[in-house]
Amino acid sequence: MTEHPEWVAVDWGTSNLRVWVMGPSGDVLQYREDPRGMGVLKPEAFAGVLGELLSGVERQDTALPVVICGMAGAREGWAEAGYCAVPGPPPGADQSIRVPATSPDLKVFILPGMCQQEPPDVMRGEETQAAGFLAMTPDFDGVLCMPGTHCKWVRCAEGMVKSFKTTMTGEVFSLLRDHSVLHQALAGPAWDMASFDQAAETAAENPGQALTNLFSIRADRLLNAAQTGPAQLSGLLIGAEVVALHQLWSRRPVALIGSEQLADLYARVLTARGAEVQRIDAEAATLGGLKAAYEQLKNRL
Amino acid sequence: MTEHPEWVAVDWGTSNLRVWVMGPSGDVLQYREDPRGMGVLKPEAFAGVLGELLSGVERQDTALPVVICGMAGAREGWAEAGYCAVPGPPPGADQSIRVPATSPDLKVFILPGMCQQEPPDVMRGEETQAAGFLAMTPDFDGVLCMPGTHCKWVRCAEGMVKSFKTTMTGEVFSLLRDHSVLHQALAGPAWDMASFDQAAETAAENPGQALTNLFSIRADRLLNAAQTGPAQLSGLLIGAEVVALHQLWSRRPVALIGSEQLADLYARVLTARGAEVQRIDAEAATLGGLKAAYEQLKNRL
Repeated sequence: MTEHPEWVAVDWGTSNLRVWVMGPSGDVLQYREDPRGMGVLKPEAFAGVLGELLSGVERQDTALPVVICGMAGAREGWAEAGYCAVPGPPPGADQSIRVPATSPDLKVFILPGMCQQEPPDVMRGEETQAAGFLAMTPDFDGVLCMPGTHCKWVRCAEGMVKSFKTTMTGEVFSLLRDHSVLHQALAGPAWDMASFDQAAETAAENPGQALTNLFSIRADRLLNAAQTGPAQLSGLLIGAEVVALHQLWSRRPVALIGSEQLADLYARVLTARGAEVQRIDAEAATLGGLKAAYEQLKNRL
Repeated sequence: MTEHPEWVAVDWGTSNLRVWVMGPSGDVLQYREDPRGMGVLKPEAFAGVLGELLSGVERQDTALPVVICGMAGAREGWAEAGYCAVPGPPPGADQSIRVPATSPDLKVFILPGMCQQEPPDVMRGEETQAAGFLAMTPDFDGVLCMPGTHCKWVRCAEGMVKSFKTTMTGEVFSLLRDHSVLHQALAGPAWDMASFDQAAETAAENPGQALTNLFSIRADRLLNAAQTGPAQLSGLLIGAEVVALHQLWSRRPVALIGSEQLADLYARVLTARGAEVQRIDAEAATLGGLKAAYEQLKNRL
């Protein structure tokens, strides 16, 4: 028997959006990706994009609920969904905002992000992954590490987000690769894991010198024709990051949520420094968080 | 009595070139700047640009010597002038290379840069400023700090460059301001010196966390409408840099050579950490280095 769509989960980020059409048993009936992320949309364009992506999805008698997390809820997004403060549980249906859709057969809700006053920090999207992870592992007392353009380190305990920290490691890597004088040294060379490990080790021994050691990647290329630039830079940045946040993750389990390749690198550096690391599927975490919000919402619809 | 041009000093950098037409008594007879730096020129274009800039300069019976320092001597420049190794005196006329000019009434020499094998490092242009400074202060036993897009920290003693270190602080600042998610937080706000001092102090206390603390500049803007982004970022980066290089400058005089505004910031951070800082005029240092090379050259022409 074919399942009918019951609701729609959406992760609407800065650079793309992902849409899962969900059946009543929790199965993913359809999946779509689209490059129209928050970064390229005006607020008034979001509803149309969603309507377009869901135009072929079969409707039942009642309107189809859509639960959205991520940058769609930013000030420059579809509508500002605000932030829930830490320490506290990740936001759920009660904190979501309802936004007008292009058609009455869609009921669209956007989840808020989370914010921290001291030191100032914000996240949008990762709190929903944290919610999904905590739904699966309610007793978790440790740290979620979510590498990406920005890496979120989220301290969880008692079903709550206690505090978190955003680092710009991925973005700094891209900036240096694409726009800096290191460009040539970072273009071309294949990945060299031994260089990554060594650079991470050196940076971990002295994270304060990571920033001042960047230029030697270029000089090593010029003087020695070194072909290890990308791995060196990555090791230097991730090594320095992991050690700078040592107090956050030491003596606690670390759950890594992120793309396989990048999570592998963080896992190497963390385990080399004694951390106990488990890997979590990123999509399962996102969907789990959106599903938890939908389950709350269902009772209100 | 009007002086006749005797030689020409040129500092040919990545983003511009500066030309001083010099009289026999060491006076600057004419000065020109041009945006055609190494970064926008093919190797075959340099001779024509120089010829054009000197076309109106009066020639005597003998050819006009031109002494060039900087990126014109890079692999991608006019002609590769190589590097002199450290430890050693800054390069002079004997290490320069002669390159063909567009006209026989110009004799053009390019000075090499300096290189260091371990840790790998290179410079082009700053070694000539060091030469100029050492010509004025031959007994200097300390560190030259030359802030800019890249900051060069040059350890000098016994008339030699003993070692040096390049940091990318200025470039990292520009990348984050122009291309990163911090863009908004760094656009607009006026300079706030108290925020600079505080950020430098915080970063100096823990330079290893400078990289991981970048994002809070954005969060502080989002949550608290903070208007102190540029000063915060600058303080964070310079504070971390100065402390990371503490071993290099501590218990030694520091001579600061650079644009007034940027050198002011380095001077604040260095003196707050106990360094003894003197300020050196950047143009005088460059011209002094080129003049020292010309004086050697004159005997060979």
